[in-house]
Amino acid sequence: MRVSSGVSGFDDLVGGGLPANRLYALSGPPGSGKTTFSSQFLVEGIRQGESCLFVSMHESRDDIFEDMSGYEFGFDRAVNSDRLIFVDVFSPEGKRLFRPPKKHHDASSLINRLTGFIDSNGIDRVIVDSTMLLEYLLADAESTTIQFLTSLKRTDATVVLISEMTDPSAYADEHYLAHGVIFMHNFLENGGMQRGVQVLKMRGTRIETDIHDVSFGPDGVSVGAKRGP
Amino acid sequence: MRVSSGVSGFDDLVGGGLPANRLYALSGPPGSGKTTFSSQFLVEGIRQGESCLFVSMHESRDDIFEDMSGYEFGFDRAVNSDRLIFVDVFSPEGKRLFRPPKKHHDASSLINRLTGFIDSNGIDRVIVDSTMLLEYLLADAESTTIQFLTSLKRTDATVVLISEMTDPSAYADEHYLAHGVIFMHNFLENGGMQRGVQVLKMRGTRIETDIHDVSFGPDGVSVGAKRGP
Amino acid sequence: MRVSSGVSGFDDLVGGGLPANRLYALSGPPGSGKTTFSSQFLVEGIRQGESCLFVSMHESRDDIFEDMSGYEFGFDRAVNSDRLIFVDVFSPEGKRLFRPPKKHHDASSLINRLTGFIDSNGIDRVIVDSTMLLEYLLADAESTTIQFLTSLKRTDATVVLISEMTDPSAYADEHYLAHGVIFMHNFLENGGMQRGVQVLKMRGTRIETDIHDVSFGPDGVSVGAKRGP
Amino acid sequence: MRVSSGVSGFDDLVGGGLPANRLYALSGPPGSGKTTFSSQFLVEGIRQGESCLFVSMHESRDDIFEDMSGYEFGFDRAVNSDRLIFVDVFSPEGKRLFRPPKKHHDASSLINRLTGFIDSNGIDRVIVDSTMLLEYLLADAESTTIQFLTSLKRTDATVVLISEMTDPSAYADEHYLAHGVIFMHNFLENGGMQRGVQVLKMRGTRIETDIHDVSFGPDGVSVGAKRGP
Amino acid sequence: MRVSSGVSGFDDLVGGGLPANRLYALSGPPGSGKTTFSSQFLVEGIRQGESCLFVSMHESRDDIFEDMSGYEFGFDRAVNSDRLIFVDVFSPEGKRLFRPPKKHHDASSLINRLTGFIDSNGIDRVIVDSTMLLEYLLADAESTTIQFLTSLKRTDATVVLISEMTDPSAYADEHYLAHGVIFMHNFLENGGMQRGVQVLKMRGTRIETDIHDVSFGPDGVSVGAKRGP
Amino acid sequence: MRVSSGVSGFDDLVGGGLPANRLYALSGPPGSGKTTFSSQFLVEGIRQGESCLFVSMHESRDDIFEDMSGYEFGFDRAVNSDRLIFVDVFSPEGKRLFRPPKKHHDASSLINRLTGFIDSNGIDRVIVDSTMLLEYLLADAESTTIQFLTSLKRTDATVVLISEMTDPSAYADEHYLAHGVIFMHNFLENGGMQRGVQVLKMRGTRIETDIHDVSFGPDGVSVGAKRGP
Repeated sequence: MRVSSGVSGFDDLVGGGLPANRLYALSGPPGSGKTTFSSQFLVEGIRQGESCLFVSMHESRDDIFEDMSGYEFGFDRAVNSDRLIFVDVFSPEGKRLFRPPKKHHDASSLINRLTGFIDSNGIDRVIVDSTMLLEYLLADAESTTIQFLTSLKRTDATVVLISEMTDPSAYADEHYLAHGVIFMHNFLENGGMQRGVQVLKMRGTRIETDIHDVSFGPDGVSVGAKRGP
Repeated sequence: MRVSSGVSGFDDLVGGGLPANRLYALSGPPGSGKTTFSSQFLVEGIRQGESCLFVSMHESRDDIFEDMSGYEFGFDRAVNSDRLIFVDVFSPEGKRLFRPPKKHHDASSLINRLTGFIDSNGIDRVIVDSTMLLEYLLADAESTTIQFLTSLKRTDATVVLISEMTDPSAYADEHYLAHGVIFMHNFLENGGMQRGVQVLKMRGTRIETDIHDVSFGPDGVSVGAKRGP
Repeated sequence: MRVSSGVSGFDDLVGGGLPANRLYALSGPPGSGKTTFSSQFLVEGIRQGESCLFVSMHESRDDIFEDMSGYEFGFDRAVNSDRLIFVDVFSPEGKRLFRPPKKHHDASSLINRLTGFIDSNGIDRVIVDSTMLLEYLLADAESTTIQFLTSLKRTDATVVLISEMTDPSAYADEHYLAHGVIFMHNFLENGGMQRGVQVLKMRGTRIETDIHDVSFGPDGVSVGAKRGP
Repeated sequence: MRVSSGVSGFDDLVGGGLPANRLYALSGPPGSGKTTFSSQFLVEGIRQGESCLFVSMHESRDDIFEDMSGYEFGFDRAVNSDRLIFVDVFSPEGKRLFRPPKKHHDASSLINRLTGFIDSNGIDRVIVDSTMLLEYLLADAESTTIQFLTSLKRTDATVVLISEMTDPSAYADEHYLAHGVIFMHNFLENGGMQRGVQVLKMRGTRIETDIHDVSFGPDGVSVGAKRGP
Repeated sequence: MRVSSGVSGFDDLVGGGLPANRLYALSGPPGSGKTTFSSQFLVEGIRQGESCLFVSMHESRDDIFEDMSGYEFGFDRAVNSDRLIFVDVFSPEGKRLFRPPKKHHDASSLINRLTGFIDSNGIDRVIVDSTMLLEYLLADAESTTIQFLTSLKRTDATVVLISEMTDPSAYADEHYLAHGVIFMHNFLENGGMQRGVQVLKMRGTRIETDIHDVSFGPDGVSVGAKRGP
Repeated sequence: MRVSSGVSGFDDLVGGGLPANRLYALSGPPGSGKTTFSSQFLVEGIRQGESCLFVSMHESRDDIFEDMSGYEFGFDRAVNSDRLIFVDVFSPEGKRLFRPPKKHHDASSLINRLTGFIDSNGIDRVIVDSTMLLEYLLADAESTTIQFLTSLKRTDATVVLISEMTDPSAYADEHYLAHGVIFMHNFLENGGMQRGVQVLKMRGTRIETDIHDVSFGPDGVSVGAKRGP
């Protein structure tokens, strides 16, 4: 089964949509459009009648509402729908769900709380914003991160993990652990910043791996033509 | 709501002004103009009748007064206004506000003191000068830094965090955590140093992301034309 | 004795097949085809009447079945054969086999459990997916990793270890410990991603070390001509 | 108030002299002229009737006397003046002043001893040679270094901190903490070593930021024309 | 006294042979021919009537026999000679000889066991395969590695230490500690892998330091002409 | 006072000889000629009737004798003179002199033993071969290394410290602590290795800083013309 990304032009790069119930890493530098892409992904889910979860450590519900208010892809309706659950990690409810483990060698309880929440609420789409959350919660212990992501992969939801890259010349664990990897590019060219998107990996899918142009418009992020040589 | 930066030409890059009540990272190498930009930002606030807070570990009140005395954008009047609170972290009052936590795993008390101060004094604009302050206070613990910045994001003030870059080839946590990222450039070109400014990210705002020239004049920093190819 | 890789065109690079009962490192960035190569390797073993083991921390049995269902090289028949044992490290059975040692200085018990499993089940081909598993199980202790891989080399099976590279500019221990090293390439060229394979080392074998083209088709990965200069 | 550097041609780069009572970082590779520049700075102070302090971990009084004896800018007279206090950190007196703290979390006593010495002796100019001294005394603890330099900034003396760069591609804490940063360059060009000086930052001063030639002559270091493109 | 390397063309690069009773580092990336070179070195020793020791953590006796069986330089006869002692570190005998020290600060016992073994068996040539063995045995403690290699240098045997390079841009301790350093190159050129050998250092010997071609043939590795510019 | 280096052509680069009683760092990659340069330096001292000390962790007395026996600059006579004291750190006498401190925070005893030895034996020239010795003895503690080198600087001997560079792109502490820095170059050019020497720094001396050719001949290392552009 494939789910539509909600991002115009993107589904064509991945054989018509993202394979459902899998974990995707969405990587890129600051300002490359990761949050907007993710918001469109959730709005598309709501449009399809699905239940969605947005876990954020970067934004309160009001902030994200305001951020997306300049676009016309319907984030306001989605936020007001009861099918979007927004969890702000630093709010009281967020702290209940994501109370860090006392000793980082046993993160099982935190992991069980989150996957239990996803499954018991019948969540179809999840955004985790972002890997920095894992550093905060799991004290950056590599083995616990592996365990956390592996558990997310086994839920019945399609999960998009926003992944910050502090060292852009190296791959991170999440790029290997995820079923698919999407890079948002943001680079200096001819004195201006150029945007692009690239699907680096997608298990079980014949993908288009070239960089494609990305532009921001009233409907949010949209994917355009393949970048010329 | 948008607030004016007070820097001539800058507001045009960000849709007319900075979205209010958010956290911005202002990054750049030594000598790129971060402090002057920030001072103009505060003077603009005073001019608008707002309350402002300048938290500095780099400068005493007298130092910064002297630094800015060569400019004519009115920093002297602002300093003498009772609407600018200047906190020198190493002064007795500064130490009271920023007494480092005994054990860095519980920085909540320090964080509460600062955000409480901002909210109870009805502060509208805050400069935190600089991320090095966080290293000093929080012993460079990543999870505590995340908690500190997240709390600042949730105050009712527009916060500019001056961010030093020791490794210019990598993004830092604050670039991901902030709602917006402004880079001040300072680079060798044709044997001389060229200055520029670039808005890399600004949540909820259609931004101009190209590098624009920056010059220093009697009115402080001002932003000029887009740099040619 | 040599065993066929099951990858069209690959055996020609290594003198007709991989020397049996040895350890091979299969390295490459995300999306370069490591898992598909490995799956074809197992299917070829099943076709030859051999017993095969797929140890995965990345995929459940269902995931990998779905991933490979788009190909026609017979993975479905292999999975349903009782000669393919699939161990998902995070499943209950997987946890029994791979229960991490209490103190990482004594990983002998875990190592003995795995090599004992391989030998008592008469396994001929093993895929270990991936080196990240070693980080998870062995807490990244270098001396234990050496001991683990050395033990695998001494079983009576041909073992392919999928090796993730986080720092692509450096060799890792497994490249030195393995009898052979196969690199899957995935690089930007003329604006698109190009794929290739290269045999860097193969003990006791006259090898073709140039980069050869790789393409994905209905039969999975296949190796083509040597890349032009 | 501005103080003359004593280096011919240098004052023109910084608006006529260094702003008094501030901290400057003087950086550069081995052999770039940092010590000679600093010696001229002290001689100029003595000439003006000021009191000066040279804190050295690199040189004994005799060594530096011999080093500078090849020049004719009057270091011999300065050394014999009772207005130059030379502290060799490894001499008995030096050890008294700079006895490292027992536990590096409380460096306050050492810091108080030095700033008390500066203030009670009415010192006008200080050379600290060098940042390696800080590593030795403070066990390289970043938070203590920040505290140490901040205290120096608040004395009533103009302080020049000689700063070694082991990683020339990155800025160090002292470049951000100092009121001004002066780089001495020393680079291979056309098969020979070329010298230059560059003022990267100077708070409250309109500076000339281009690289200027530096030459060594009988009068020590002198600054020449701007380097051509 | 000089000993022949057994590698055709190599002795000419080092004044007719390797100075006897010294320690040489043989470095290179995976697949560059280090093991084949070493095997020829031992076969040459056997041919001269010398006693030889091959310490391996990478290969069992059978593996290396099989690896070298494709060549015709006589490794099979050497292995069957009683003048070649093969120690597989992970075999029961190997474990007796190389039992790691309980606490890595006292590796003297392990070091004495090995040097005692070399001297009491009158060994003339030793291969240590490889530096990774040192990491395994000595827990990567730099001071112990120095002590280990220094002890090997003082035995009455000519020792070749195979040295893996994980960071190819830096020299390692063994390159400085060894009396001689031989690099095996393996680099991409015109789309194919090119092999070469280079003697970087050889105490007491006028050496040819240019890169020379290396080829693999029935007689193993042989050294050819100097690579053109 | 200046002392001749004993290396033909070198003294001209440093104003006629090395300033006496100072510490020099002699740096370079493996095989660049550091040991030969140092041996010539000692032979020159013996020729002048001085007392010399060679502290080596790399070579026994016999090794170095053999290494230098191919040259005709008189090392054999020097070794047999009773004015050359050769200390092999790993010999029984060496261990007495260089017994590592029990706890690395108190290296004073070791440092006092060595400087006392130098002063009580009236040593004029010292070679310390090499910085790796410091790692071995001082457990690589930076603050202790600083103390060790500072003490050596204050003896009445001219000391040459051979300095290995594992990361050639960065300066090390000894380059800043030494009164002078001499680099031996060894680089690939036109397919062959080219040698050169460069004086980077020499306190109190007008130096020639360009790279000069170095060649090896019967009289050891000698310095030739300045390398062309």
